[in-house]
Amino acid sequence: MSTPETQSATTPPVIGVFDSGFGGLTVLRALLSRLPGARFAFIGDTARLPYGSKSRRTIARYAAQSAQFLVNQQGAEFLVIACNTASALALDAIEEAVTVPVLGVIEPGAETARQASKTGDVLVIATDATVQSHAYAAACRARGLRALEKACPLLVPLVEEGWTGSLIPAGIVAESSTAQAASAPPQVAVTAEVIRIYLDELNADASAQGMKPDTLVLGCTHYPLLRGLIDKAVPAGVRVIDSAEAAAEAAVRLFNGSAARLSGGQPSENPSPEVQSLRCFATDSVEKFERLGSRFLGRPTGKVELVDLGG
Amino acid sequence: MSTPETQSATTPPVIGVFDSGFGGLTVLRALLSRLPGARFAFIGDTARLPYGSKSRRTIARYAAQSAQFLVNQQGAEFLVIACNTASALALDAIEEAVTVPVLGVIEPGAETARQASKTGDVLVIATDATVQSHAYAAACRARGLRALEKACPLLVPLVEEGWTGSLIPAGIVAESSTAQAASAPPQVAVTAEVIRIYLDELNADASAQGMKPDTLVLGCTHYPLLRGLIDKAVPAGVRVIDSAEAAAEAAVRLFNGSAARLSGGQPSENPSPEVQSLRCFATDSVEKFERLGSRFLGRPTGKVELVDLGG
Repeated sequence: MSTPETQSATTPPVIGVFDSGFGGLTVLRALLSRLPGARFAFIGDTARLPYGSKSRRTIARYAAQSAQFLVNQQGAEFLVIACNTASALALDAIEEAVTVPVLGVIEPGAETARQASKTGDVLVIATDATVQSHAYAAACRARGLRALEKACPLLVPLVEEGWTGSLIPAGIVAESSTAQAASAPPQVAVTAEVIRIYLDELNADASAQGMKPDTLVLGCTHYPLLRGLIDKAVPAGVRVIDSAEAAAEAAVRLFNGSAARLSGGQPSENPSPEVQSLRCFATDSVEKFERLGSRFLGRPTGKVELVDLGG
Repeated sequence: MSTPETQSATTPPVIGVFDSGFGGLTVLRALLSRLPGARFAFIGDTARLPYGSKSRRTIARYAAQSAQFLVNQQGAEFLVIACNTASALALDAIEEAVTVPVLGVIEPGAETARQASKTGDVLVIATDATVQSHAYAAACRARGLRALEKACPLLVPLVEEGWTGSLIPAGIVAESSTAQAASAPPQVAVTAEVIRIYLDELNADASAQGMKPDTLVLGCTHYPLLRGLIDKAVPAGVRVIDSAEAAAEAAVRLFNGSAARLSGGQPSENPSPEVQSLRCFATDSVEKFERLGSRFLGRPTGKVELVDLGG
């Protein structure tokens, strides 16, 4: 005889997770560890990445197409927009395009910053488009925080080139093509120097404005792979907030009514891949997605399916 | 009374120039100085850049749409594919999509390398997609050269971030937002170090294969803006070939029958912008195109028009 819990546990809802590329797999990774009983459908709009350099109008159109794919074709009952740029520029467009609850990464990041900051002054690093939207500044202002945002366009390519050294999170497997670069000091030194330049400029701007920042928000889902280098570069006493972790925490709270059946009652730090259901889709080369994606997901993506969203 | 020459000089053909972004403006710049009497229509498919990380199928579809726009809507009688990635992966698709002569940048780059190289061993740096296509290797092999190709994915973002220092070609105006970065040593030192790392890896691979390279082909239209730093980084005796210059030279030869009416009989190093006709189109933010484009074109782009190619 099955209880309602075990009945529903056999048919968990699908959580749709969307990003322009691979970065959102850091959010999916955080979700997988918190909701081991859930089913996930992830789409990376890799044919049209990166969104970070595109206009609001274009990003909104692209993001709405991916959201509709997850809901209409994959049956997603919740959507997590695991892309800071799309969350900043297209959350309204996505909410209009679908009828299910939609969670972005901006609000959770700002909320975690509010809980962490004592001075009320917050720094944010992100892509060009996220910064130009000032979505983090607005979300912080609504919580009584002052935020200073800085675009760091070189960090995503440095992550994708694998110049992140051995400081990538444990369990993430370096690819053979980048393993040499990842272990060699000069490449990692370049990345560390780029981070130092960006943070020095940001801290100088903050000082010039009389701010006393004690919190740094990583406003791009690629940046968790630079976490070790960033932790070394921030001044003492500055807390680093990972928007991927913050979004996953918020997703668990949002899905609270369903959390028991999603998690089977117990969250797990090390879920077995076998008990979870994950389908990954990409709009361009699935081979590249499978190859790079495992670095972000921390385990193999499994077979990735090609989707044509048009355009 | 007008002669045939002056008659035809009043109605010069339109030369269509296509790139995925701004880089192709270095080719257009070289064309403008060689064909001062011509009319030009340039399209940058900025909504979908960069092509360098996309698959052949996707690149071919996008490039064919831009080519058809230039021919069918702008009346282009010649097409110059001022994008190494599209030339490498989509030249066939473009030639099938239109009925006018089409010139890519790969063959001219390889031909100039053949003329320059004494050892017959050539190095090529380019984007991921251009390298994976091995188009340069094939074009070099057809000319009796051995070519070793290397993808340098960080160079385009470094150029677009403006971390190129004062070594950008004379006449290229630094933007206000990047002028500070361009003049500050640490940013330029990062770019120089990235170039050194890439070229060291490439030279080590060449040595391991018993090659004696004396020629380096810049297989990406962004790289001319790094020319000064690259010239400093290459070993003595290695000649640097700029594929943008090579393509412009080849275009003049290709259009030979029309060259007299295109140039008004005389090429000019410093054509007056007023006597030339140039229309620029972009598929995304025209403001960004106008702002960044002048750095590549070496003069203001003029008003850029937004085009929707779908997708």
